[in-house]
Order: sequence, then C-alpha cells, then structure tokens
Amino acid sequence: MTKDQRLQQQIDLIHRLDEMKMVQRRSRLIVDPERFENDAEHSFHIAAMAVLLKEYAHPGTDMERVLSMLLFHDVVEIEAGDTFAYDDVGNASKEEREQAAADKLFGLLPEDQRAYVRGLWDEFEAQETAESRFALAMDRLEPVYLNAKSGGGTWKDAHVSREAVDRRIAVLKEFPKLYEFTVELVDSFFAGGDQ
Amino acid sequence: MTKDQRLQQQIDLIHRLDEMKMVQRRSRLIVDPERFENDAEHSFHIAAMAVLLKEYAHPGTDMERVLSMLLFHDVVEIEAGDTFAYDDVGNASKEEREQAAADKLFGLLPEDQRAYVRGLWDEFEAQETAESRFALAMDRLEPVYLNAKSGGGTWKDAHVSREAVDRRIAVLKEFPKLYEFTVELVDSFFAGGDQ
Repeated sequence: MTKDQRLQQQIDLIHRLDEMKMVQRRSRLIVDPERFENDAEHSFHIAAMAVLLKEYAHPGTDMERVLSMLLFHDVVEIEAGDTFAYDDVGNASKEEREQAAADKLFGLLPEDQRAYVRGLWDEFEAQETAESRFALAMDRLEPVYLNAKSGGGTWKDAHVSREAVDRRIAVLKEFPKLYEFTVELVDSFFAGGDQ
Repeated sequence: MTKDQRLQQQIDLIHRLDEMKMVQRRSRLIVDPERFENDAEHSFHIAAMAVLLKEYAHPGTDMERVLSMLLFHDVVEIEAGDTFAYDDVGNASKEEREQAAADKLFGLLPEDQRAYVRGLWDEFEAQETAESRFALAMDRLEPVYLNAKSGGGTWKDAHVSREAVDRRIAVLKEFPKLYEFTVELVDSFFAGGDQ
C-alpha cells in the first residue's frame, strides 16, 4: 500500500486486470486449437490488429482512443464473465451484469479517471463514433479469423449457422476492404476450403 | 487468400500474432501463481497500464506511439523466444536472434509498414525518446508487480538478488512517483511483508 492514494487507486485496477488472463472465451487459438483464448490475449490481438489496419479506419479516427477502448472494452468480464456472442439467453442479462461490473471495477479509480474509462466503455457500447465503429470491427474480425483458421472453432462447437455469422460481420460493411476480406474468409470456410 | 495483396500481407502478420499466446514468460499470474504469463497477456497488461498511468509520462508523450510500441515490442519473441531478464548467457545472444526475428516477422508487411513497425521496435530498444522511456517503465513495472504479488515468482524461482532487482527498476527513476511506488513494493516483498 503506497502513501499516494491516487496512484494506489490506479494500481488497484491494474491488479485486477491480471484476472483478464483467466476469463476464458469461446474462440480457439490458431496455434493450438485445443486451447481457448482468454480476454487478455484477445484484447492484445485486437489492439495490435488496430495498429496494423488503421489505414482502413475512417479519416480522422483517433487511434489512441481506439487502442484505449480496445484494451478496456472487455474488462467488465472480470466480474460479469464472457457472454457467448451466439447465446441469446446470456445476452438478455448481459447489460445488467456488465453495468454492475463497470461500476465496481472502474469505481476503483480516482473520479476523473473513472469517468474517462467508463466513457471509453460506454462509447464502445453505444457505437456512435468513428473510434467505436473501428474498434468493433476489430473485435468482430478477430474471432471470425480465429474460427476460420482453427478448423471452425466456435462455429463448429456451437453449430452456428452461416446466417448467424453473416449477422455478426455485417458491422464491417462500412470498412469495405475489411468486409470483403471477411466475407471471402467465411465463404471459403463454409465451402470447406480454407481450414 | 484475398486478392488485395497489401491487406493479405497485413493479415499474414496478424495471423502470426496468435503465436504470442504461446510464448511463455517467467512471470507468474497473481490470480493463479501456478501458471506462467504469456507474451500476449503481458503485452495487454502493460498497454492497459500505460492508459491508466499516462499522467506520469513526460509532458508531450505521444500515447498512440507508446501503446503501439508496447503492443509490438515483444513480437520478435515469436521467433526468438523469451529471454529471461536475469539470464546473462541468454542475453548475450539475444540481440542477434531478435534482429533476425524482426527481419522475418516485420518483413511480412508492406514496405511502408515494415519500416513503421520496425521503427517502433528499434525506438523501444534504443531508449532515446519520451515514448520509449515510458514504455520501458511499464515493461519493467509489470513483472515486478506480478512477482511481488505472486509470492516472489521469478525472484524466488531463480534466486534473484535484491541488487539485481534494483538494477532492473533503476530505469523507473525518471518517473518519481512510479519509482517510489516500485521501491516500496520491492522493499515490502523482501522484508517478507506484502506477499
């Protein structure tokens, strides 16, 4: 416990971020399809993707904000757990569970930062800015890529239909090159080619 | 394989970033000290730390660059492996192995981006800018924190001396509040208190 209360509050959340390494997702790794990805790994992967794909974002997109958003958008799952994208029942209670988790986790921070990080998360959820749209595109592309390259992953495990996948990737349409790539990837997988 | 060659080159590196989830480090998780952290988890944790601690960076520090640097500074370890910080023999060959790895991995990218990502990595290694100094501070603070909070972790496993730890954390001195916190943390651990 340090004497500097502000820094200690920041460290308190940093301490809890370690738990992101234990929140298991439904996606399987390409490099080891026996193993499921966790939230820390996923957040790393999508943030690094955003760095490499930033030229496809809308002009003027603030990349510091995109990266910060991607690093914090799943932090609530430390408390609320990962809700499977294709689970309609889980998704019905998701918002309430995640709002309570956000209060608890971001509430560890000093007040100004609590508002900042909560703002990043709210912005991601609201999907009204160029930053949050591009961040969501990364968040959707990554699991699709992992599924397609790990022999079906989630899609096979949970018998997800082509139509359900199409609904998930529709948000990519506003980034035409990324959307075209994603559709080719899904086409190729469902045609049994690129596995 | 998409028709857009530029995007395909970017995807080729994104594909390989999945391997970061399998590069095992020497730090143990706080939440499960039986398990070692991997490079993807570490990169997530230090980037998220940078977001929360950015007020301690030198004025004018470009946070997009810090975050991008933190996300890519360990990517060479996909090819070169993780070199234990306290392993003098491993560190003697580290530079050569990592340079070859950087050529191979960043060489997947289109030429302009190859220069950009290589530049991030070179800048981190050279430690001459405000961005790389702050990035290194995050990279040093995180494993120290994990060790102190996981019952000693690496320090116990490898019988690392207090003096060796002090040398590792000396780079934090230019960020006085972070340095003071880190010294308290190490003091408390070596005094047997905060474990």
